[in-house]
Amino acid sequence: MSIKQRIDSALEAAVAACETRGAPPRLAAAMRHAVFPGGARVRPQLCLAVSAACGDDAPALADGAAAAIELMHCASLVHDDLPCFDDALQRRGLPSVHAKYGERIAVLAGDALIVLAVDVLAGAAEASGAAARRLPSLMRVLAARVGAPFGIVAGQAWECEDWVALPAYQRAKTGALFAAATEMGALAAGGQPQRWRDFGEHLGEAYQVADDIRDVAADEQWLGKPVGRDHKLGRPTAVAEMGMAAALAHFESLVQRSAAAVPAGPGARGLQQLLHAEAERLLPPALVGRCIAPEARSAA
Amino acid sequence: MSIKQRIDSALEAAVAACETRGAPPRLAAAMRHAVFPGGARVRPQLCLAVSAACGDDAPALADGAAAAIELMHCASLVHDDLPCFDDALQRRGLPSVHAKYGERIAVLAGDALIVLAVDVLAGAAEASGAAARRLPSLMRVLAARVGAPFGIVAGQAWECEDWVALPAYQRAKTGALFAAATEMGALAAGGQPQRWRDFGEHLGEAYQVADDIRDVAADEQWLGKPVGRDHKLGRPTAVAEMGMAAALAHFESLVQRSAAAVPAGPGARGLQQLLHAEAERLLPPALVGRCIAPEARSAA
Repeated sequence: MSIKQRIDSALEAAVAACETRGAPPRLAAAMRHAVFPGGARVRPQLCLAVSAACGDDAPALADGAAAAIELMHCASLVHDDLPCFDDALQRRGLPSVHAKYGERIAVLAGDALIVLAVDVLAGAAEASGAAARRLPSLMRVLAARVGAPFGIVAGQAWECEDWVALPAYQRAKTGALFAAATEMGALAAGGQPQRWRDFGEHLGEAYQVADDIRDVAADEQWLGKPVGRDHKLGRPTAVAEMGMAAALAHFESLVQRSAAAVPAGPGARGLQQLLHAEAERLLPPALVGRCIAPEARSAA
Repeated sequence: MSIKQRIDSALEAAVAACETRGAPPRLAAAMRHAVFPGGARVRPQLCLAVSAACGDDAPALADGAAAAIELMHCASLVHDDLPCFDDALQRRGLPSVHAKYGERIAVLAGDALIVLAVDVLAGAAEASGAAARRLPSLMRVLAARVGAPFGIVAGQAWECEDWVALPAYQRAKTGALFAAATEMGALAAGGQPQRWRDFGEHLGEAYQVADDIRDVAADEQWLGKPVGRDHKLGRPTAVAEMGMAAALAHFESLVQRSAAAVPAGPGARGLQQLLHAEAERLLPPALVGRCIAPEARSAA
């Protein structure tokens, strides 16, 4: 089975378990809508790639970890899109969960997806024989990277403060779940999570900077959601803080630091290739060209 | 240490860990506000009482389970009070979390409390030596009783449906977390969760029926929150569905069924005493008198 199939199959099983007889139908439908069709599934791919690099001796546990990370990501998108935050009506080119099912179901679907992530990981451990002893560490890393004080929920909470340190904000808001992906990929295969942390965290920060750049430079059709929203909401963004040229340079530097942080080993080359392909998918050369052009014009 | 001290000490350690240097301050403050001062802490007390009845051979794990259940309960109150649900400005006689910290922080504090519950339980398992092998089952029970399709989140989601079966709704909305308390108390001590399920579930349903009765009959000062809200919001309630007299009888019957479900053993008598004391705290004789009076009047 391909990595993508492993991920989709684990997610499908998790979501289907919530659609059983006697379940509240709108909640179940909203959960499916939040998870399928997905985006690039980058975090779970990263998790499984690191698990493979560490020997993948408990593949079902790694699948559970990957699915749990993606479900946490989907939950965060549902809550970020709520009227009190981004008030986004679109996500991945479709209506957002609150636009389609209402605000109340969106709050509950986010909650239920967080809990589903926990259930999927615990269920995978339960079925993993001796590897089940890895569950406490896996669960603690997942909780640390999602919750307070330094996970993605805390990252979002920085948007409610008067003063924000941009690096801490970006590390928490996006870097944290990428760090979870690499750390949990290692843990699921009995590897050492701390060796894999920087690789994920720098890549996650690069993602956030790319997101800031795209918010300014991309067009809506390509992005699948409205552009200029962070800017309009006065969010702390890399582009607002350092300007477009410096933000692009920062992105490049984060990608390089992430590549340099891949631990040596048989899988290192493949992981670096994955990383550079992702970087190009995030900011295609044509978009980078468009980003530089207006700055060049304004400097002229 | 008394049971109450064990619970408060575990909750205090959990909340304090989110107030560390570098944490977003409003999120941390909102989480503390949601957890302290608490209500009656009935669910965690129930968890520890069952653990004691099962031998309490891993007390730190039982404390973690009890704290996790209470944190899930606090999270559910924060989200239930949101403007899109109850829009409650008061909780336990103080401003609700969204009234004090705003809607965005309330959404995030609820999310962070769910994740904190998971972290506390996983951390307790990590420190419990051989008893750590009980974590997968503990975590799965917690997830099942909180999330979709049959946990407290699903219970709340039934309020967003056009048609609701009252028993299924009440079992999910309140019974589920009480069932978690008894099942996890047993699991934490190496006992059999299924033997303890009905005791918790019937007691939880009794709580929900008592809540419906108090919503109609109590006064605001005694309740610490506005009265008549479920009624005003057209919620499915036992009183609306069956009338006050039948609701009172239903409450009594649930308390009796819960008492009868306590497994035989050295702790049975103490648990039944706890149960009857709780029943009296929920619906004091004076309140029951006031409940019956208007019906008697209207029948006259």
